[in-house]
Amino acid sequence: MYIGFSEAETFIRNCKDAVIITHRNPDGDCTGAGFAMKEILKQLGIRSRVVCHDVFPKRYDFLTGDAEDEDFEPQTIIAVDVADKKLMGKYEEIYGDKVQLCIDHHVSNRNYAEKTLLRADAAAACEVIYDLAKFMGLKLTKHCIECLYTGIATDSGCFRFACTTPHTHEVAAEMMREYSDINFTKINRNMFDVKSAGRIRLESRLNDMIETYIYGKLCIIAVTKDIMEELGVSEDELEGFAPLTIQYENAEVGIFIRQRADDYKCSFRSADKVNVSEICETLGGGGHEKAAGCNLSGDLEDIKKQLIAAVCRAL
Amino acid sequence: MYIGFSEAETFIRNCKDAVIITHRNPDGDCTGAGFAMKEILKQLGIRSRVVCHDVFPKRYDFLTGDAEDEDFEPQTIIAVDVADKKLMGKYEEIYGDKVQLCIDHHVSNRNYAEKTLLRADAAAACEVIYDLAKFMGLKLTKHCIECLYTGIATDSGCFRFACTTPHTHEVAAEMMREYSDINFTKINRNMFDVKSAGRIRLESRLNDMIETYIYGKLCIIAVTKDIMEELGVSEDELEGFAPLTIQYENAEVGIFIRQRADDYKCSFRSADKVNVSEICETLGGGGHEKAAGCNLSGDLEDIKKQLIAAVCRAL
Repeated sequence: MYIGFSEAETFIRNCKDAVIITHRNPDGDCTGAGFAMKEILKQLGIRSRVVCHDVFPKRYDFLTGDAEDEDFEPQTIIAVDVADKKLMGKYEEIYGDKVQLCIDHHVSNRNYAEKTLLRADAAAACEVIYDLAKFMGLKLTKHCIECLYTGIATDSGCFRFACTTPHTHEVAAEMMREYSDINFTKINRNMFDVKSAGRIRLESRLNDMIETYIYGKLCIIAVTKDIMEELGVSEDELEGFAPLTIQYENAEVGIFIRQRADDYKCSFRSADKVNVSEICETLGGGGHEKAAGCNLSGDLEDIKKQLIAAVCRAL
Repeated sequence: MYIGFSEAETFIRNCKDAVIITHRNPDGDCTGAGFAMKEILKQLGIRSRVVCHDVFPKRYDFLTGDAEDEDFEPQTIIAVDVADKKLMGKYEEIYGDKVQLCIDHHVSNRNYAEKTLLRADAAAACEVIYDLAKFMGLKLTKHCIECLYTGIATDSGCFRFACTTPHTHEVAAEMMREYSDINFTKINRNMFDVKSAGRIRLESRLNDMIETYIYGKLCIIAVTKDIMEELGVSEDELEGFAPLTIQYENAEVGIFIRQRADDYKCSFRSADKVNVSEICETLGGGGHEKAAGCNLSGDLEDIKKQLIAAVCRAL
């Protein structure tokens, strides 16, 4: 059931001992949303812990903190930025059918939770949580704002992508005005500019691998297990490279393919007009208009043919 | 003489047949500011033309337009985003001492004009022009807003750099709310994401050339004429690569050096705390706290020693 801010507030103020679930392959938005939510609950005197199928990447250490989680039997199950219970990974079995509140911004949200606060026009789940906290009249902590800003900045490509609305800028303006002691520049630098020497080399190698199809309108980078071994990287180190597939001026759709144990993870990006969420839905996946994904099994060349055909139909 | 909005308004409303000067090596901000100013003057029934020592790069074609300039003997000389008359190149001799109004945001502005509207807390000259136009009560055209947004976005690294203030975000929010028919995402894509295959290869090569000094706190990329020849690029094709010098986590200062006919152009970037404008001023240059530059002559190895010593002193 979809709910509004008022009902979400009532739920949050009355919950106890909460588990906050984020999605697998955690990004800045679900990490920021998870730990902002934890901070908000703490402020209300409610115990909680954030869980994720994967380990949070090291670059988000400033959000996740190092406090030991208290041990408790969860009474409340909250999901943030999780559009589909399948994205919970190992937590799907335990909590997938028990989520009481889901806070999300994915138009593809499967409405799997008892109550869902969905704002599909928000640039990030963190933007929804910020608006909710304002609605609740809370004065957020500095750390909470760091979490929320990081989520908004990373999901919007630092206010660059189409999901950025006037309201997204207004939220950023408010945060910067009210929390002038936060080093937003440093957050942006760490999220967008800092790269290890290895990652710089990796980007160069991936750029060499761009394949173009459909008169350059589709670009694909496909990284097999063999290539990962040759480059000396694991699959999760390939996080964040999907935008490389839409660098060329003529590119309309880009697909970044990573081989996993049993299948290929295909991350779609749209340069401007094409709705890649729709394409991914025809392939069993989902996401946003400009950034979506699906997982396909089989032979890589067959998968590419399937992807090219699907993009051809959409163009 | 420094002036405020009111006096700038009076000047603009009463000027005629204006030349608008931008700085050499034009970037998104001076290009946007120049053509926004032209549009504003046109709206007020005042003829003008925008001049630049260099040809405006092709990626700014959507700002510069293709209208033929009217021929007139200039009565008014306006400079936008030009901190020092030396930056006018060939126009310094003709107009350097005759600038009646300078609109700028560089803290290093040399106050060379008769009247200077300086807002050193603005992220871009375009932000100053936007605020001035609002002050004047003008309803700007769509093209004018495209010019101004481009200047703000490019100079602030799409709201990523330290020059971004709450007001910068508020201006972006206003623009997006009032001009919902502008494709801001497309502007951002073209300014930040689209790269030619040649530029992608070039970036890889430049990344291979990063030299680290002072325990990794200083990174230098130095591109000599020989290397340009080897890479098949001209000096102006190397525009925009300076941020590559502060990609490493430990980097505090980065310097991107390009050999020119008679000297070396050194572009400084600061990762966080160091004021590179101050360093550049000790070397005869100037700019902003986080992005500044100077030109040095002599032997490259000697220049590097000089730069390392200057950065050492600042650290």
